[in-house]
Amino acid sequence: MVATEKPGSRDTGQGLANRETDFPGWYNDVVMRAELAEDAPVRGCMVVRPYGYALWENMVANLDRRFKDTDVVNAAFPLLIPQSFLLKEAEHVEGFAPEVAWVTVGGSEELQEPLAVRPTSEAIIGPIMSRWIQSYRDLPVLLNQWCSVFRWEKRPRLFLRTAEFWWQEGHTAHATEQEAEERTRMMLEVYRAFLEEEMAIPVIPGLKSEGQKFPGALRTYTVEAMMGDGKALQAGTSHNLGDHFARAYDLIFLDERNERQFAWTTSWGMSTRVIGGAIMVHGDQKGLIMPPRVAPHQVVVIPIWRKDEEKTDVMEMVGRVFTILKKAGVRVKVDAAEHKSPGWKFNEWELKGVPLRIEIGPRDVQNSSVMVARRDRPGKEGKEIVGVDILTQRVADLLEEIQNSLYQRALDFREANTRHASTYDELKQAVDDRQFVDIFWCGDPACEAKIKEDTRATNRCMPLDQPDDTGKCIVCGGESEAHWIFARAY
Amino acid sequence: MVATEKPGSRDTGQGLANRETDFPGWYNDVVMRAELAEDAPVRGCMVVRPYGYALWENMVANLDRRFKDTDVVNAAFPLLIPQSFLLKEAEHVEGFAPEVAWVTVGGSEELQEPLAVRPTSEAIIGPIMSRWIQSYRDLPVLLNQWCSVFRWEKRPRLFLRTAEFWWQEGHTAHATEQEAEERTRMMLEVYRAFLEEEMAIPVIPGLKSEGQKFPGALRTYTVEAMMGDGKALQAGTSHNLGDHFARAYDLIFLDERNERQFAWTTSWGMSTRVIGGAIMVHGDQKGLIMPPRVAPHQVVVIPIWRKDEEKTDVMEMVGRVFTILKKAGVRVKVDAAEHKSPGWKFNEWELKGVPLRIEIGPRDVQNSSVMVARRDRPGKEGKEIVGVDILTQRVADLLEEIQNSLYQRALDFREANTRHASTYDELKQAVDDRQFVDIFWCGDPACEAKIKEDTRATNRCMPLDQPDDTGKCIVCGGESEAHWIFARAY
Repeated sequence: MVATEKPGSRDTGQGLANRETDFPGWYNDVVMRAELAEDAPVRGCMVVRPYGYALWENMVANLDRRFKDTDVVNAAFPLLIPQSFLLKEAEHVEGFAPEVAWVTVGGSEELQEPLAVRPTSEAIIGPIMSRWIQSYRDLPVLLNQWCSVFRWEKRPRLFLRTAEFWWQEGHTAHATEQEAEERTRMMLEVYRAFLEEEMAIPVIPGLKSEGQKFPGALRTYTVEAMMGDGKALQAGTSHNLGDHFARAYDLIFLDERNERQFAWTTSWGMSTRVIGGAIMVHGDQKGLIMPPRVAPHQVVVIPIWRKDEEKTDVMEMVGRVFTILKKAGVRVKVDAAEHKSPGWKFNEWELKGVPLRIEIGPRDVQNSSVMVARRDRPGKEGKEIVGVDILTQRVADLLEEIQNSLYQRALDFREANTRHASTYDELKQAVDDRQFVDIFWCGDPACEAKIKEDTRATNRCMPLDQPDDTGKCIVCGGESEAHWIFARAY
Repeated sequence: MVATEKPGSRDTGQGLANRETDFPGWYNDVVMRAELAEDAPVRGCMVVRPYGYALWENMVANLDRRFKDTDVVNAAFPLLIPQSFLLKEAEHVEGFAPEVAWVTVGGSEELQEPLAVRPTSEAIIGPIMSRWIQSYRDLPVLLNQWCSVFRWEKRPRLFLRTAEFWWQEGHTAHATEQEAEERTRMMLEVYRAFLEEEMAIPVIPGLKSEGQKFPGALRTYTVEAMMGDGKALQAGTSHNLGDHFARAYDLIFLDERNERQFAWTTSWGMSTRVIGGAIMVHGDQKGLIMPPRVAPHQVVVIPIWRKDEEKTDVMEMVGRVFTILKKAGVRVKVDAAEHKSPGWKFNEWELKGVPLRIEIGPRDVQNSSVMVARRDRPGKEGKEIVGVDILTQRVADLLEEIQNSLYQRALDFREANTRHASTYDELKQAVDDRQFVDIFWCGDPACEAKIKEDTRATNRCMPLDQPDDTGKCIVCGGESEAHWIFARAY
């Protein structure tokens, strides 16, 4: 607490790469310095550190509740998938085979059949589900699994692209195609609501093009978010698998007329990648800004005193403030470490993105008030003195305000950086300006490929929310019935 | 609901193997028929089905809270461990190498160094922790990971022994040997409290013999439980790793005098195996009995009506009962399926071990009361009529009574089946009688091995709670300062 005793070498507020000129470097600095994650001593893999994992736990708890509200139940399926299973759905294996890690030796013996470390679990859950389904009465089956999956990754980036990542994968089976489509869209809506309401990340729900869909799917829906550098992040996907996997894995049931039918399946996933998204949407030059609803610590309390005779009173009030906030259900942390200065702690907790900081010094004790500082508003503008008697309500209100303000800021940013392009030159310019570009596209993969080659922008999605008009393909001039979003992407 | 419309072929109440004469067959039947788990189409692996996983989720939530109350934080470490890491602690690799599954191919290429699918994570968490620890100020580090691990298994049994299983593994590092020992014992106490208070499984906390300890540990503590057939189950272990792993993985810190010291580490784990334990401790000829505190459904409500005109009133009351119990925080399920008879449902939910059944028929509607039946007391003795106005309180009391009664019954059973043996013949007889046998043993591995060879009983532990006496080794007659428990075990 003594102001002179600073571990000064680590000036957290200023040591990050410049967010404006080196966004990727800034991102990596934030992830590492905020102790969210780091590279593992295993090729392409990451370690999710306790602070990052605490965020993930809050995300998991919330998303899990949302799944269960739609009657989904959790289960656990094997980590390893026999090669022959993976080979059964042709498009699926083509999409994933190059990225698979193979177990070939077990119990000191060469295996007869290699086992894949799951890259995703359609190929093992399909065959298992098929045992559980005999009649239409057994449907729907609504499953989810929380686990990690493994996809060999040549150019790993923490959270965004690592060989191992943590996620949930939902797998459902239905009696009708329509019901499967409804479930696919329902889970997309769960993702949208979760991302916008909890993560404060505005998203565009849309349909993926044929070229961008999940290997083996009939159609893939996505929620696309704009990062702080204008690039897109696919934040979650929901796949209508048609009867493709049901045919591959014999998911057959007897319908009400006692006739054999193939089931209709879906799968949908969201991963630790969203943590990377939250950093890139909300972070600033000082570091992270955690959305209050999922923040590991919503409030950090920092005692400030110089003389020993001040310490007792200050720490007594710190304890009191901690208790009333804790009782009110606020996730509050006290940083009372005496070998770090208050200024160092301010920087540290700003870097870690705690939404609200409460400072308590001798004068605050006298006035029975505290200084509250918002992470999302730097300087005096974000500071206010709050009486202890009204602190609980004020903290609740401020956390809500920050949550809404982060969302609104991100939405404003996206809207300011989204442009309709009518000509190919406009498209190129917009991509160069790091915008989301709204265009008419005819649906021809050749036109899509040309855009990618010329601009490095990929087809993000056909937004579900469509203006009531049609137009000409920006590449070939052919008829187009829908707007599509193109952008460079992670 | 129509009483004649029974899917009669599946008479769940009577189809289980005989628990008295074929305990293993009964166990397997219960696991399968209650839809807790099943064999996966991958050698030695299991699928944890939604009902089994719901139980595991309740266990995880409770245990996780208990860990966090002792300042443990969660994190996620890589699934795959480079071979060279595993080789660094000699005893550790010797213990686990024969059971390891190896990834040798990734991204379509032969790997330079094989990667182990983690059998446990000391060998990867050690090296990572060593990056995080510079000074004594960084200690203690108190980590936990929820994940699945993989150990090649020749004779798998659902929950008890499968190649893949789900668990938590705690890993901590400390500045002093004493602190590490205190943490080891603290986590053992967490396991004891969890097992006894939540799972209603009485356990004996004790020390493992040298021959039974974790590969690489200084000493291993265990909580041992008696199953319904008198055999022992090791339900959780907590290891003081000394400085063995710190030396292998360079866990070095600067102490207060700025001198380099090796850290002292611990690890501790509890797994889905405990689910198998709960089945074998509480189950009966009708199936499972779920301990109320962790039961996926604490109460099942079954409507009973014959004529359509009765249905409306009955279902209205069912809805009302569901709502008031739900509001009171009870995990309640309504089974209103009309293609199954009430009798079939009674059997089904008894098989699945739901602690309380509520039956609601037309007469109950008139009397504004319901029939409540306890799972743990068969027949009339366990049934009572309860007024709807006092239902919430009565249900809470009954759940508590069942929880306590399950624990007491298991404790009585264990005490009735534990015997002190003074002679080798007494020991052999006691093991034949499927008892826990309390003996004096000198500590010599040769005497321990002889007992195992002669009786198939293994050394379970030296109970922490010791009478104040000494004696002679039951095998060699040498001096013995402690009582030890021997028993056949899972």
